Order: sequence, then C-alpha cells, then structure tokens
Amino acid sequence: MTDVKAYAAQKQAAPLNDFDIKRRTVGPDDVQIDIAYCGVCHSDLHMVNNDWGISAYPLVPGHEIIGDVTAVGAKVKNFKKGDRVGVGCFVDSCRSCEACEADLEQYCLNGFKMTYGSETDDPGGFTFGGYSKGIVVDQNYVLRVPENLDGAGAAPLLCAGITTYSPLKHWKVQAGQTVGVIGLGGLGHMGIKFAHAMGARVVMITTSPEKGKDAKALGADDVLISKDESALAQWAGKFDFLLNTIPVVHDINPYINLLKFDSTMCIVGAIGEFESFQTPQLVFGRRTVAGSLIGGIKETQEMLDFCGEHNITSDVEVIAMKAINDAYKRMQKSDVKYRFVIDLKTLS
Amino acid sequence: MTDVKAYAAQKQAAPLNDFDIKRRTVGPDDVQIDIAYCGVCHSDLHMVNNDWGISAYPLVPGHEIIGDVTAVGAKVKNFKKGDRVGVGCFVDSCRSCEACEADLEQYCLNGFKMTYGSETDDPGGFTFGGYSKGIVVDQNYVLRVPENLDGAGAAPLLCAGITTYSPLKHWKVQAGQTVGVIGLGGLGHMGIKFAHAMGARVVMITTSPEKGKDAKALGADDVLISKDESALAQWAGKFDFLLNTIPVVHDINPYINLLKFDSTMCIVGAIGEFESFQTPQLVFGRRTVAGSLIGGIKETQEMLDFCGEHNITSDVEVIAMKAINDAYKRMQKSDVKYRFVIDLKTLS
Repeated sequence: MTDVKAYAAQKQAAPLNDFDIKRRTVGPDDVQIDIAYCGVCHSDLHMVNNDWGISAYPLVPGHEIIGDVTAVGAKVKNFKKGDRVGVGCFVDSCRSCEACEADLEQYCLNGFKMTYGSETDDPGGFTFGGYSKGIVVDQNYVLRVPENLDGAGAAPLLCAGITTYSPLKHWKVQAGQTVGVIGLGGLGHMGIKFAHAMGARVVMITTSPEKGKDAKALGADDVLISKDESALAQWAGKFDFLLNTIPVVHDINPYINLLKFDSTMCIVGAIGEFESFQTPQLVFGRRTVAGSLIGGIKETQEMLDFCGEHNITSDVEVIAMKAINDAYKRMQKSDVKYRFVIDLKTLS
Repeated sequence: MTDVKAYAAQKQAAPLNDFDIKRRTVGPDDVQIDIAYCGVCHSDLHMVNNDWGISAYPLVPGHEIIGDVTAVGAKVKNFKKGDRVGVGCFVDSCRSCEACEADLEQYCLNGFKMTYGSETDDPGGFTFGGYSKGIVVDQNYVLRVPENLDGAGAAPLLCAGITTYSPLKHWKVQAGQTVGVIGLGGLGHMGIKFAHAMGARVVMITTSPEKGKDAKALGADDVLISKDESALAQWAGKFDFLLNTIPVVHDINPYINLLKFDSTMCIVGAIGEFESFQTPQLVFGRRTVAGSLIGGIKETQEMLDFCGEHNITSDVEVIAMKAINDAYKRMQKSDVKYRFVIDLKTLS
C-alpha cells in the first residue's frame, strides 16, 4: 500500500473531473447496491474537513449504508437482486493476515480498505461512500439486513451499532451483570440497547440528569450522575463492564474506580491523548483499560441478526441530502437523538 | 476494619514496650514457623520510611518468608513439624467475599491482612513480618515449598515470583508466543525465568545494553533496547504479552505500540499517575492495559510447585541482618542482582 497522505496530497493538487466520480463496473465478485439510507457519522465531518490529513477530494462520505441489490457478478452466490443489504466502514481487507483469518478484518495488519477515502485501483483512485445513489462492493464485505428492521434506523447499526456491540460481546456481557454505558450519543444509545438486550442491568453514566431520563427510555435501569462524588463512591467497584463512549479526551480515572476486580473499561469514543492515567486501581484489582474498533464482517452480520431478533434499531432523524451541512453543525453541538440518516431518495 | 492511618498514628504516639513484639500463641489453626530466610522487597523500605503514611512502629518488615514448621495447632492437617514452608504478602483475608471465594484473596473486597503492618487482635496490635526469628500464621495462608529449591533463592518467589507468575498465567502465556519483559530488576528477572519456562520466546526490553546481556543469561532470547527508535519500529506489533516491571511512572505509549492486536500489557511495577495515555493504539487493535497484584494462595502454591518442577529460584545476594541498612541503600540504586535475602541465622 502506498502512502495515503502522499497520495491524498497528489489528489488534492489534481484538477477535479468527471472521471473522479464514476462508479466501477460490476466485477464477478461484486454486488451493485442502490442506496436507500446512509447514516451520518462524526468521522464523516472529520474527513470532509481533512482533520486527519488523509482526505482526497472529491470525497463522498458515508459508511452506514442500507440499500437494495440491483445487480450481482457471476461468482456472487449469497446475494441476489432485490435483497436488502448493508455496507459498513470497510469494503475490503488483505484477507490473509492473522487478523483477517480470525474474522477481525477491522484490525487487518495490512490496513483495511475504508468504504470511502481509501486508495483503490477503481476509477477515481479512492473509494467513494454512501452519500450517493449507489455503490459497488465485493460480496465478502456486504451484509444481509433482516427484513423486519426499518431501513433508516438500521443504517447506523453498520458503524455505531457494531462499535458498541463488538466490545459488549468480546467481554462477554450477560444476564446478571451490571454494565455502565458512559456518555449518551450515537454510540451510547446503541450501547444501552444492546447491553439491555443481552440481559445486563444497564446504568447510564452521564454528567446530565436530562440525558439520564432519556437513557431510561432507551432501556437503562439506573442513572449515575458522574459529577456527583457521593454517587460515584456508592457505585465504586460495582460494574462488570464499562463501555466508554465519550467522544473527547477526558479524565478516565473516576470511571476505573467503578469497576469490580478483574473487569474492563473499553474506550470506543475518544481517540487521543489522555493526560492522566492512575495505575493503583488497575493493580489493586487486576482491572483493564481497553480499546475497540467497529467489528469484523462475521460479527457485524451476527449483530444485524441479533438486531432482527430483538427488534433493535438506532433512534434516528431522517434528513434530506441538502440538509447535510446543517446536520453537521447540529451534530457538533450533540443536537441529535441520536443519529442523522440521509434519505437518498432526496439526492437528485 | 478501623481506619489504618488513624490507628497507625495512635500507635506511633504510644511508647514502645516489650508487649509490642511478643509473638502470638499457637491457636488451633496456626502454624508456628522458624524463619530461615526473608527476602528484601522495595516495599519494605517504603514501610520502614512510612512513605505511604500507614506504618506503625515498632515495625518488623518482610513478606518473602521461608522457614520450617516448629509447631502446629490441633486443627492443622496439611503441615507438620519439620516441613519447609513459605509465607507471602498476606496472612489472612475475609474468606467470604467474591474475590476470596474465587481464590483471589489478593483482591479481597474487605482488604487482606498484610504479613506486616496490618491491624490485628494479636499482641502488638499489628502484624509483624519476616525480619524475625519466627512467625505464627493461619494454616490457610501458609505455602508448601518444594524440597529441591534452595531456601534463600526461594524466598523472593513469595512476592517477586508470584507478582510476575500470576499475570503470565492469567493472560495465558504459552509456547509459540513472544513475550516482552520490560525492566530488569527483582520482578523482571523472575518474569524472564517464568516466561522462558512457559515456553515463550522472551524479549528483554530495557534501556541498558548491559542489562540486555544479563537478561540473556537469565533465559531471554532477544533484547530490545527501548531507546532505539528503529528497534522499537522493528518490533512494533510483535508481542503477544508485555510484562511491565518498571518500578517508577514512565511513558507507556511506546510499549503499547509493540503489542499485537488483541493483546495486553500488564503493569506490575509502577503504582502511580502516568502523565500520558494514548488511546489510538488501544482502539485500532483492541489492545488492553492492565494491572496485577501478587497472587492468591492457591496460585502461589501452583507457582511454587511450578518452580520445583522447573528448578526455578530467584538470583539472590544473601546478607546478614546487620547489613540491612546498607542493602536498602544499594537497593535504591538498583545495585543488586536481583534480590537481597536475609539469612535469619544472623539475627541474634
């Protein structure tokens, strides 16, 4: 794989032209999808703004894609025209490294191919995402979406959903356990729904009493206001698992203290440098702090099936394509319950 | 349990007298031990200096105890006069909490009773440790020491040994894996021996080429000099497990980058506040940072049996009791390979 930043710089310097936005033809292993809905993820905004320095323009964001199959290649066996399908954060990986062989393509040692913004041999040079009428994806990276799920509500499952489902499953959350979900946004609201459906006692951990109320409506059993020192003391050592969805760097130490011995806090929201990290609470209880990234294809399919079985979708606000800039502004103020989803019929 | 700090303050204010150092009589569940050797742990010095504000004087340090049984109580079944036994960091726990019931007394939710410096109903008010001719300990907290092990070399197994053995076992270190031991001292040298005996490829991670050489003599297969940026890059993503024995706070981020996806760095040395903690490496590889404290009685016995089977002891420098103050000074300069052990015959 060549250097993405260098490639992006080259792309950014080149003039835009029609060639950049052509869709690739349907190869033997490809599934062609008419996109019905696409969720709006915070990372879309980062990519639009080139916050990470890897964006190449023209850039078509979107990796929470729900659509219908319109054509399949000769070798495609598991999908046919008319199937309702999903596409998540990546559309290919090396398929041969230790991670890919363990169905953990999200940790592909050679780097997975992002649904948008990754270098490709296709026309345009980079993958284009779901803010679009259609997409062509290799059959091995297409998900089957249960028919009972609402299309718009299912879209965020492909990123926000699997991001929260995967750690809850990996750390074996189950009935009889107490699980804390820290932060209530796109990720947190899915964390509550999943942990609740897995049978755990779910505690919403938030700075905001208002969000506490909302969390209960979503399935939380209790609320812990994290600014309340006495509440923190009361809940110390009570949690079997903590799912930390706070999207910015913060002081994690008060949360670690909430864990039972031998338990884990998993960070899925904040990617950055935390300024303080106390080890006594880890050592005196064999506690762990972990991170987790989306999920592999196999687990994403399992998550979608779980959602079908438990009738779980994301709470969404459906918008027209032309409202995207306003949606970005509102998203930055956390003014959405809990995910914007673009109705692609509105894209002309 | 009353407040230890308050109790300690009260003790410190009280005049010393003979009563303070009487040994308790042998109760029905007790084992009386003549102490042959006692290892010198860095925490002894902290307690002697009241660095943690919980020391009560007179204080008798020492929690790496090897000795011989001289008497047993009426209910003692598994030990008899003449047995070679060991006593580690604690001599009692609540026996009924979730941790104790899981054979993890080191995480006892009600606080274990330290071998020295813990409040007790016995004469003296506090437990007294192994820098002594003898000790009386409840049979459930006494360990059996394999006869083939050298007594002095076995003493540090009771703290430095179990502190490193327990995380290696908990995170399932095994043949075919690559394990990094960070830091070479009392803990690190035991980590190398155990990981090697468990069949792993062991890499000594150190700032010092000299220590690298020493590590190879102890069983390390390779050496990674952690100041060498290109060596760090070469080893990135190569480790199945990292045992971090550095005794002071430090920058952990370069080490996390050495881990494979889905693997763990366990901190056993540094108890304090780290100034920086990068989460991207955790998230983009489901890596974890953990802590671990000594081990439970059952696992400590398993460790001693493992040592008997593999002929593992600590590399020690045996000293006379009167040399303890000099040993403390040298220990602070890391001038010992790798643990001082007091020969209690020298205590008159």
